[in-house]
Parts: sequence; C-alpha cells; structure tokens
Amino acid sequence: MAKRNALYAQSGGVTAVINATACGVIETARKHRSRIGKVYAGRDGIIGVLTEDLIDTSKETPAAIRALRHTPGGAFGSCRYKLKGLEESRAQYERLLAVFEAHDIGYFLYNGGNDSADTTWKISQLAEKLGYPLACIGIPKTVDNDLVATDNCPGFGSVAKYVATSMRETGYDVASMARTSTKVFVLEVMGRHAGWITAACGVAAEKEGEAPHILLFPELAFDPEPFLGRVEAVVKAYGFCTVAVSEGLRDQDGKFLSESGVRDAFGHAQLGGVAPRIAALVRNRFGYRCHWAVADYLQRAARHIASKVDTQQAYAVGKAAVELAIKGRSAVMPIIVRKSNRPYRWAIGTAELKDIANREKMVPREFITDDGFHITARCRQYLAPLIVGEDPPPFKNGLPVYVKLRNVSVPKKLQSEFKI
Amino acid sequence: MAKRNALYAQSGGVTAVINATACGVIETARKHRSRIGKVYAGRDGIIGVLTEDLIDTSKETPAAIRALRHTPGGAFGSCRYKLKGLEESRAQYERLLAVFEAHDIGYFLYNGGNDSADTTWKISQLAEKLGYPLACIGIPKTVDNDLVATDNCPGFGSVAKYVATSMRETGYDVASMARTSTKVFVLEVMGRHAGWITAACGVAAEKEGEAPHILLFPELAFDPEPFLGRVEAVVKAYGFCTVAVSEGLRDQDGKFLSESGVRDAFGHAQLGGVAPRIAALVRNRFGYRCHWAVADYLQRAARHIASKVDTQQAYAVGKAAVELAIKGRSAVMPIIVRKSNRPYRWAIGTAELKDIANREKMVPREFITDDGFHITARCRQYLAPLIVGEDPPPFKNGLPVYVKLRNVSVPKKLQSEFKI
Repeated sequence: MAKRNALYAQSGGVTAVINATACGVIETARKHRSRIGKVYAGRDGIIGVLTEDLIDTSKETPAAIRALRHTPGGAFGSCRYKLKGLEESRAQYERLLAVFEAHDIGYFLYNGGNDSADTTWKISQLAEKLGYPLACIGIPKTVDNDLVATDNCPGFGSVAKYVATSMRETGYDVASMARTSTKVFVLEVMGRHAGWITAACGVAAEKEGEAPHILLFPELAFDPEPFLGRVEAVVKAYGFCTVAVSEGLRDQDGKFLSESGVRDAFGHAQLGGVAPRIAALVRNRFGYRCHWAVADYLQRAARHIASKVDTQQAYAVGKAAVELAIKGRSAVMPIIVRKSNRPYRWAIGTAELKDIANREKMVPREFITDDGFHITARCRQYLAPLIVGEDPPPFKNGLPVYVKLRNVSVPKKLQSEFKI
Repeated sequence: MAKRNALYAQSGGVTAVINATACGVIETARKHRSRIGKVYAGRDGIIGVLTEDLIDTSKETPAAIRALRHTPGGAFGSCRYKLKGLEESRAQYERLLAVFEAHDIGYFLYNGGNDSADTTWKISQLAEKLGYPLACIGIPKTVDNDLVATDNCPGFGSVAKYVATSMRETGYDVASMARTSTKVFVLEVMGRHAGWITAACGVAAEKEGEAPHILLFPELAFDPEPFLGRVEAVVKAYGFCTVAVSEGLRDQDGKFLSESGVRDAFGHAQLGGVAPRIAALVRNRFGYRCHWAVADYLQRAARHIASKVDTQQAYAVGKAAVELAIKGRSAVMPIIVRKSNRPYRWAIGTAELKDIANREKMVPREFITDDGFHITARCRQYLAPLIVGEDPPPFKNGLPVYVKLRNVSVPKKLQSEFKI
C-alpha cells in the first residue's frame, strides 16, 4: 500500500492527558514510516482542518513529542465546533474531504468525546460514498467519563485523582478548624450531565466520617430538605461536613441551580457557581460558617497529580488508533476494556463509532447509595483502579516543565478559503 | 534544671505544613528527655488550653509523629480565638497560667501568625510578673507570609507552589481552547491584606505572554478601566488572558469587592467570590467567554504539591523553638534568615515577639510593576527559592496517605471549668 499522510485533531474540552494520546499517535506513526508519511494536526482542532490551517508535526523533535506525554492542555489547540448531519452541514463535510485530498490524508484520527465520534463516523460514511480511501478513527477523550462502550475515558482518571485528593486534603483542613471556624465546606466539580467526577470525590472517604460526607449528583434532582437534614446530622456526628457538588446539579423542575443563561457553541448552558448557592443554603438554615471552592479548569489541567493508569491508557489509545488505521480499519474507536478488578488489568479493544456517537453514559443508580448522597461499594470498585499510580511531570525551579511545540504550518494547497 | 512539660498549640488558619512544625517540636523534645517531660498539645488550639482540654502526645508512636511531616491541616485542632490586652482579657490569661501550673508546663510553644505572637508575648510578660518560670516561644506559621522579621513564613512556600503550578497548568488549558471557547480565566487566591499569594502566582510566568498575565493585588485599589484595557491588550496579543486576583481586592473606596458582611472571631470580614465579579466585569464589557475558579482551602491544604524548602523550614522552626526553650529563651520566635539568593541558603535566626506582634508585612511597592499588574524581577528573586523542591507524601491506592493521631486526653487537674 502507498504511503499516505495522517491527520490528527483534538476536539472539545482538553484534559491533563490528551497530549499523552497525541504523543502515542505521533510516536507510533513515526515507527511506521513505510505506511504513514507525515502526521499533520489541525490547528485548533477541526477548525484548522476546515480552514486548511494544518500543523506539520514532523518539525518537532523526538524530545518535544516525548514531552507531550506529561503536558496538559491541547498542544495543537482544540475547539468547540460541532458538525451537524451530513445534509445540514454538507459544505463542512465536503470541505474536509477537499482538504484531505489536497494533503493526501489517508488516516483521520479525531480525539474527542461523543460529538467527535459522531463527526468521525459521518466523515467515514461520506468518504466511503465518494470512494475516497480514508481510515477514520475516533480516539476517546473526556474528563466526563461519559462515553459508552469503553470501560472508562482517558482524561477522567486524572481529574478523579485530583478531586479525590483535594477532598481528602480539605477534609483534614476543615476538621482542624471546625470548632470555631468553618463547619461546612463545598467543592464544586465538573460534569454537566454525568456525575462521574462527583462520584470520584467519594473515593477519598475510605472510612465512616471521612471527607467527603455528601455528594450531590447531577443524575438526581436536588431536594433541599433531605440534603439539609443530612448536613446537620453529619455536623452533629463529626463536627464538620464536606460536600462535593456537580456543576450540573438541577432542581426538581430540571433547572440548573447555577444557570447563568450563557450557552456555548454546542448549545450547552455555560455553568458555574452552584457551590456558593449550596453554601448559602446551609448558612441561611443553620448559621454554620461555610466555605466553598470552585475548581473549574484547575481540575482538568492538573497534570502534576495525574493518574499513572490514566496517562498509560491515554497513550495506549493513541498508539492503538494508529495501529487500527494502518490495518485499514475505519469508523472505529480504540476503547479500554477491563479484564479484572483485583489486580486491575485492562486491554485495548475496539468499538464501532456509530455505537458511541451522541450517547452519554450516566452514573448508574446502583452506583449511588439509596439516600442519594454517596457512592456504593460497587461504584468504588469501578473507580478505585482508575486513579492508581503517580506520574509526575519533570519539575524545574519548583514548577512543572511543560512543552510548547513549534507548531509549524503546512503550506496551503487549496485556492479557496473557508469561512467558519 | 528540673524536667518540666511542654505545651504546644496551633493557632489560626492551618497550612499544608503546620504539622511538619509539630513534628519538629515533638521529635526534638523527645531527644531532650532530661529537660522536657511530656509534650502536651492544646485540643483545638488555645481553646483547649483554656478549657484544660490537653492532648498527651507521648501516646503517639514515633511513626505517627513522623507522618505529621507530610500531613496537612492541624493534627491537634486549631482555632480562631483572639486574646486581647492583659487587662481586657485578664481572666483568660490567668486561666492559662493556672493550667500551666497544674500541668507543670515550663515551655509554651505557640504556632501561629501575628495575633498569636502577640498572645505569646503577653503570656510571657504575665508569667514574668507573677514569677512563674516559663519559656514562651512563638513559632511562625501563615500562608499569608505577612509576618515581619522573618524572611518568609512556613506555610507560604507550599501555597505559592500550588497557585503558581495551577496558573501554569490552566494557562496551557485556556490557550488551547481560546479560539472558540474561554478567552479569559480568573483564579481567586487567598491573602486578605497582603498580596504574597497573588504575587506567587506571577512566578509561573517566566516569559512574555505566559500565564498569569495580570495580577490584582490587595495592596492596590482596583480601578476597572486600566484593568479592562490590559485584558483587551493581552487577548489581542496572545488570544487569551489569565488573571490571578486576591480575595482581598478593594475598590477605590477601600471596600472589598467580595464583601459578604460575615465576620470571623477576629472581626475580619469573611471573604470569597471576587473572581466571579471580575469575570462578569470582563464579560459584560467585551463579551469574552470567561471562566473562574476559587481555590479556597484547596490551596492551603494541598500537601501533595508542597514545597520542599517549605517543609524543611516548617520542621526547622519547630525544632529551633524547642532548642530555644531549653536554652531558657522566652518571648522570642525562631525565624527564617536568608543568607544568599544564588544558591539559596537560609538559616534559623531569632526575633523578639514584641517586634512581630500585630504587625503585617505587605508586598512592597517595588515588588509590583509600575502598571500594578505583575511582579518585578526583585519580587521574583525573593519568591523563586521558596517553591523549590518536591516533597510528596506517600500514596496508597492512588491517594495521599495522611495520619490521624489518637489524640488521647490528659486527665484534668483543675476543679474549675472555664467557659469560652
């Protein structure tokens, strides 16, 4: 088979380990030079592909590519830009194919969540219809851990480790001061619809009375009275109470507690600020001194406390994507398959993109305790292995050293410009 | 000299390394058994002393005491309880002396900020006046780094490392997404009056254009127009802008931007929530998508990313306090003295408590750039060594392992109870 170029793009919210996946893609492609020519990357994700703004990763040294493994954020840029159906977004899809053809792209590797799986799948359909030979591989990535088919999503384990560590640490802090100072502490974490990150906070509580004491899941409508009752009982029992709350917590009418009215490009409401509302609720009822934190991007950028299992899996799905592509597979995604819990063993499997596209995996009800405020033993068994192992970046002068790539542009070949 | 007991208490907001100081105190005292009998600790700080609720640290194993070195929070409990002048709070001071006498306390070691230095100094005066032999040693601790006399305060270096790391990491995240998503990110950090933690964020920006781009210090009245102008210029130049703001930011009238009306036991306003206000200001002016985070207790509890210099200094001041006490010194505090910058070398010195009590060290104007939005080279030279070195706690199952002490009570000897 002729040697053709590969195109890699990052999509949606970045993570602490999406660059580890990029590293897996590029290092693996460099080992298959007879099959893969250059690896290009879309600058700022799919927007860079549409506008023919491509990056030539062959201009990066092996050391720079290796450093991607420990660098957070998206090294080539990412974006929130959703392609709709093939008919609705026909101009976009045709443009993508035109760019692919101009740059002899034989492998398209799209690294994102369920929206991106949908886009990758549609591109594969169109390429097939037009007779353009293209291996379309989706690569899983999302801190939300909400992709179906895969046991878990690269990116999630590291956020999980960060939030569980933070809850444990603040638990020690608040416990020390509760007699005269803060009695209730609320940490707001990400997870718009699926409460996996909220659930992960719960892993820190290994014994009765340990932080966090209460979890508020987006899967369950928030009912203030049982919550306040639980806060009071916890404060009475332990002297303090720590709460982890999902940014996506909704009231009984399905309305986000933090609704700000702002929406992103996908039409999703832009959230933030449920923690201060929960803290105010508690303070107004009981007069307890409350503190709250909103971790926001800190949680998904915290490469310094990444899970080793997560960085290994992130790299592995990147490597597997290239291997699937050169085997001629298309419309598939490498996934994580759990082989056993004790010891935790995993392998890379494969799923069809059409089975992943536009679906969300919520925290199942049996992973949440009957009262709705914590995780069950079964949930803990699922989550525990995903945060295991430390894989710190190198430090210099007391700070982590992260790489900035040169990101050299590929000369344009098309005459036409494409407006985003 | 006769063998007498020591009493150690933690005061005010806890830190990631105050227990390293406790470790230094107890391990050192255990090496001087001919001079020091038991080391007692006040349960929940000075409140435990007033109520004769003491902890017998001799009941803890060497391994448990050693583990204090890597455990955040206050292992014996801390409190916000301010003693006023000797006349005004006469009953409290007399009670303290009664408890000391009942338990044959010859050494009082009080671990806190400038309020605690004041209390320790007053106790030393009273003891001297009453002819009660007592070595009163203050031990520095505060994330705010606002004690005078000492070059820096144990507790600060670790918060500094955490916030600088977080700003660097979120900078990589926001840069990746800025084209279509968040353009401006605001991180709120602690520091009510002194902007040392805000300044520490600035250490992450080693080159032009790196995060954080703008620092908002509590030392400088906030003026929206120059700030908004700077945000716009940074976004135009780099595509995104990251801001670190002190919780204590005030407007031109001296009012906290985040004023919530709640006050703590020291009469200080309880703050929180200036980041969302700054973000709203930017969004309303430019329409930029903004995100914000409030690190709150996460920053001062983050033992997992403690500065090694900080943990060493925290231990050293605890050790030095015991050594000063058995030398018969009183009304003093062991301090950090900077011997040189390159290489960074430090030693333990001694300062008089009366020179430290109730004074605050602000960030000097020459440490802030002329425009008021960043740190100068001189400030960077001061801050840089304080965050150097990693000293992670042990991890098990993916999470840091912290110690919970047994905290066995000392039998009471006084007949009278004392109401707080």
